[in-house]
Amino acid sequence: MKNKLEFAKQIVLEAGEYIRQHLDDSLKIMRKTGPTDLVTQMDQQVQKDLVEKITRRYPTDQIFAEEDGLRSPISEGSVWVIDPIDGTNNFVAQKEDFAVMVAYFEEGQGQFGLIYDVMRDQLFYGGGEFPVYRNEVELTPFVDRPLDTLLMTSNVGMLEKNEWGMVDLGMKCLGIRVYGSAGISFSKILSGGILAYFSYLWPWDYAAAAIMGERLGYTVLNLNGDQPNYQTIEPIMMVPKAKLSEIQTYLKKGRN
Amino acid sequence: MKNKLEFAKQIVLEAGEYIRQHLDDSLKIMRKTGPTDLVTQMDQQVQKDLVEKITRRYPTDQIFAEEDGLRSPISEGSVWVIDPIDGTNNFVAQKEDFAVMVAYFEEGQGQFGLIYDVMRDQLFYGGGEFPVYRNEVELTPFVDRPLDTLLMTSNVGMLEKNEWGMVDLGMKCLGIRVYGSAGISFSKILSGGILAYFSYLWPWDYAAAAIMGERLGYTVLNLNGDQPNYQTIEPIMMVPKAKLSEIQTYLKKGRN
Repeated sequence: MKNKLEFAKQIVLEAGEYIRQHLDDSLKIMRKTGPTDLVTQMDQQVQKDLVEKITRRYPTDQIFAEEDGLRSPISEGSVWVIDPIDGTNNFVAQKEDFAVMVAYFEEGQGQFGLIYDVMRDQLFYGGGEFPVYRNEVELTPFVDRPLDTLLMTSNVGMLEKNEWGMVDLGMKCLGIRVYGSAGISFSKILSGGILAYFSYLWPWDYAAAAIMGERLGYTVLNLNGDQPNYQTIEPIMMVPKAKLSEIQTYLKKGRN
Repeated sequence: MKNKLEFAKQIVLEAGEYIRQHLDDSLKIMRKTGPTDLVTQMDQQVQKDLVEKITRRYPTDQIFAEEDGLRSPISEGSVWVIDPIDGTNNFVAQKEDFAVMVAYFEEGQGQFGLIYDVMRDQLFYGGGEFPVYRNEVELTPFVDRPLDTLLMTSNVGMLEKNEWGMVDLGMKCLGIRVYGSAGISFSKILSGGILAYFSYLWPWDYAAAAIMGERLGYTVLNLNGDQPNYQTIEPIMMVPKAKLSEIQTYLKKGRN
């Protein structure tokens, strides 16, 4: 497994290097489900490169990825979960605050995850049997402290409509931030700067963070408090286990 | 004036270096107007150092600053406007996404401004007779493009209550971000990654950005479309002049 993690680190860093080298390329921006759900040729190329490298090295491994409808079930066999560019709108508009994310599962058990904040050159990796690192620094588990000393981050739509009681929860925290990228939000939690994250997410958005977070005292659940299904989009939270019951007292069941 | 700007760059960089060196000091956190309006001994020390250096070098210059009630009127004489740590809650909780900001006025006319994103080591400076730089890179003016290709950033309270029609405006954009620091939000506008920023701000929050933005095609106004008063807290926007009338069609007058 150590070799596989080293291989994963290498291909994720290479993906980031590719993106940085092509940052000034003109982008072919395409809409998927709506006017703010974008994909570019860079998302597609980065995923293609990652999938090719994985299947060349591990020909029997399977893929569950954001683009091109690659949807091998995560519960069976050896499966790589890939989000080639998480935060595509930030990538398009800001050229920063986006991430490459990869997670690896065997028979449904997370073995390791990686989140690469490309423009800050910060690689988060580990989980499963491995400690979690940000580049060369080993990260430390969540230390409990009062809710009103901690920042949370959320999907902006949840705030606008107080879905799941998100505004009520936010009032109990030090403040709310919105970064427009699951990978960036999760990486800030892993670093210890943000308490929790709430959004509507696909498995490729949360898989890597869930595996790494488990080692640092966090849990990834849907907003009803159940395990995510690792199949469809769901309302998802990543929270410290030590804060879960306190946070749940402020969350309302259902959207409103 | 060139010497004065060089002096300002030097003291702002020194302030950032001081903060980085003391990043692991234990913080004395005090509340000002409410549970999320924080100040630390670092804000106070950084302001004290800046004020001392300015008044030693320019003994007749005046100060308008966030802490300690320094409120010389910006409209008269030579006045330095100082925000020692903008984004104090980010500083306390995240140790990133905060800024040191300084602006300089003569008889109410902005001469130059500086925003230092301390942890990214990005110094934005210029305005008045000077081009605007991010470190050694000269920044380019806003280039008009459709609203739905651009991200905006806002105060989270405005989103929660659709104050000023902020949610309606957000629906016309590519997305909304919330960074918890005026300096960080403005620096992203100056870099070209964010269209506009909306929040309740004091003069030390917007003075530097207003002076630099003017050179790059932006304007800082209150949400009624008037010049800020440079005295009290107001609802403030920084927007490209080329987009002002389009943005104003979505803004509602008054809070709701």
